[in-house]
Amino acid sequence: MISNLIYSNDVDATLNAIVGGGNYNLVVVLVDENTRQLVLPRLPILNNTQIIEIQSGDENKNLTTLKSVWQQLENLGATRQSLLVNLGGGVVTDLGGMAAATFKRGIHFVNVPTTLLAAVDAAVGGKTGINFMGLKNEIGVFACAEDVIVSTCFFDTLPPEELKSGFAEMLKHGMLSTHEEFLQLLETDFDNIDFENLLKILQSSIQVKQRIVEEDPTEKGLRKTLNLGHTVGHAFEMKALDDSKPVSHGYAVAWGLVIETVLSHMIKGFPSADLYSLANFVRTNYGSFKITCDDYDYLIGIMRHDKKSYNGEINCTLLKACGEPLIDNTISDDDIKAALDIYRDLMGI
Amino acid sequence: MISNLIYSNDVDATLNAIVGGGNYNLVVVLVDENTRQLVLPRLPILNNTQIIEIQSGDENKNLTTLKSVWQQLENLGATRQSLLVNLGGGVVTDLGGMAAATFKRGIHFVNVPTTLLAAVDAAVGGKTGINFMGLKNEIGVFACAEDVIVSTCFFDTLPPEELKSGFAEMLKHGMLSTHEEFLQLLETDFDNIDFENLLKILQSSIQVKQRIVEEDPTEKGLRKTLNLGHTVGHAFEMKALDDSKPVSHGYAVAWGLVIETVLSHMIKGFPSADLYSLANFVRTNYGSFKITCDDYDYLIGIMRHDKKSYNGEINCTLLKACGEPLIDNTISDDDIKAALDIYRDLMGI
Repeated sequence: MISNLIYSNDVDATLNAIVGGGNYNLVVVLVDENTRQLVLPRLPILNNTQIIEIQSGDENKNLTTLKSVWQQLENLGATRQSLLVNLGGGVVTDLGGMAAATFKRGIHFVNVPTTLLAAVDAAVGGKTGINFMGLKNEIGVFACAEDVIVSTCFFDTLPPEELKSGFAEMLKHGMLSTHEEFLQLLETDFDNIDFENLLKILQSSIQVKQRIVEEDPTEKGLRKTLNLGHTVGHAFEMKALDDSKPVSHGYAVAWGLVIETVLSHMIKGFPSADLYSLANFVRTNYGSFKITCDDYDYLIGIMRHDKKSYNGEINCTLLKACGEPLIDNTISDDDIKAALDIYRDLMGI
Repeated sequence: MISNLIYSNDVDATLNAIVGGGNYNLVVVLVDENTRQLVLPRLPILNNTQIIEIQSGDENKNLTTLKSVWQQLENLGATRQSLLVNLGGGVVTDLGGMAAATFKRGIHFVNVPTTLLAAVDAAVGGKTGINFMGLKNEIGVFACAEDVIVSTCFFDTLPPEELKSGFAEMLKHGMLSTHEEFLQLLETDFDNIDFENLLKILQSSIQVKQRIVEEDPTEKGLRKTLNLGHTVGHAFEMKALDDSKPVSHGYAVAWGLVIETVLSHMIKGFPSADLYSLANFVRTNYGSFKITCDDYDYLIGIMRHDKKSYNGEINCTLLKACGEPLIDNTISDDDIKAALDIYRDLMGI
């Protein structure tokens, strides 16, 4: 269940080695309209390959799109000896990974994440899937890409918000790792990003995740720590989608991190100074997700339906401190409501 | 990738132990209209569980049915701590296995095969899936049931043809195992089946498969031997479906075994005496699948699209003799046509 991770900004040469060394009878590239236009032309090695294009956007990470990818793989004559290259953000790598893992019971696939979020999150760790009945990643399988090529060279094709979105997952990894890493990340200035340096920071961030996934590939225990920020984050994402004002996954995670850190402070004694630093960083760089107390019951309902919930109870990963995660905490409705109140205070809502 | 296999005709008590010992928050039983009516009432332990019913028949092993199972699991409030019990033949165990393996990226499932075919084939070995675009099991995953309860006590609910259908897979296992087992199976008299004894024979037959699957769970090599009879068999099944005269999987495998044994004789020197014994047994008990030379090109086309094919070439497992399988043989169109000619002779078509 482990992918081969390659950190390189020479993606064309890296892909060339993979495609050349794999003895594949067909290489198919999965793109969305953005990566087709902006990224594909930078990869001459993929000039003569077959292309499947899907529409960007989380709302297209669904069964209809998955079915169309299966159909196109079929029509292109893909076999078990074919390779699927997922070239895009998390929608492409999640849906493409699931398509590859289920087509003829599994063909090889390579992930080339083109967003920071996909690099740090979706492209590593073997989670694939689609949204279903309004629930995120509700249908999916655990399946690892043969190779994941991690680069920062395509991030210039993205709007600045995309970078912040991915950075939220790095923030989470920092909090799971050490107090030092956490403080270092808070010094980031999004107006002056050094993309050369970012590949190095990204590598150490991914290694935090990789260590956790290797110890617990199918999420029996330790891996649940990676859900930090996600129970509340997913609920915000779903609410935003329902209100037809979708927010990016990373922004939702940033806000979710604040609320779950509030809970960590309330329940596990997480240091208040670090909570305030985090809240300040998130408010400054991500703004805030506007909620009122009228939204609380709705949000709680979504949290109860989360994949991580058990017996309809809300389940969160909490932190005693940076680097000291605690899994499988059941959170009462009262505590969630109190944390949402504090979040609104901290964010000035 | 190994299921816990339990051989017992006291299915109710066995299920009771599994459900009681598993700490599941919800147990859902997947049935078809036949097992709901004929088998479910014999299992009082399942009296108070939730039921999902799908329509029997291979034509319903499709994405529409899979989607409806996902939806019903969702509506019943199934979580990662829920259990799906697949109570039925191969359609129920294949589709139910895939539903469970993909719902929330995988929940526990138990297979209770109610046909000989499902017991000997579909319920063991971790292959799940659905048909797609006219191709059998085209979409699926490798995923093992936690437990498989193998019994013969429900076979009295089946038409006699069902028993013969499952027996074809046992015949295949016999040919892969030893000459002695092969000859023993040919002595079977379908008019006088001892169901008590059948559970023992079934156990040794399943153990042949189990040994192979344990050595090669993801079909890199040895497991391909289990495809014996299936390259041609699947083509017959598809043709029958296209002609709106579906044949059961096992019958197609029986005919496929004859043709692939003809190929084994032609190419690898499989003993002619055993070929004639096999052909005689199949003709007597299964009749013959009527084809003319006008069908050859169509059948070859399907074989080229088989999951096992590489570069559009027809790939078969062949036998040097009983117990001596050889995988990854590329078969020429001329050899296939010659084998189909000989099959028609042997079957008196």
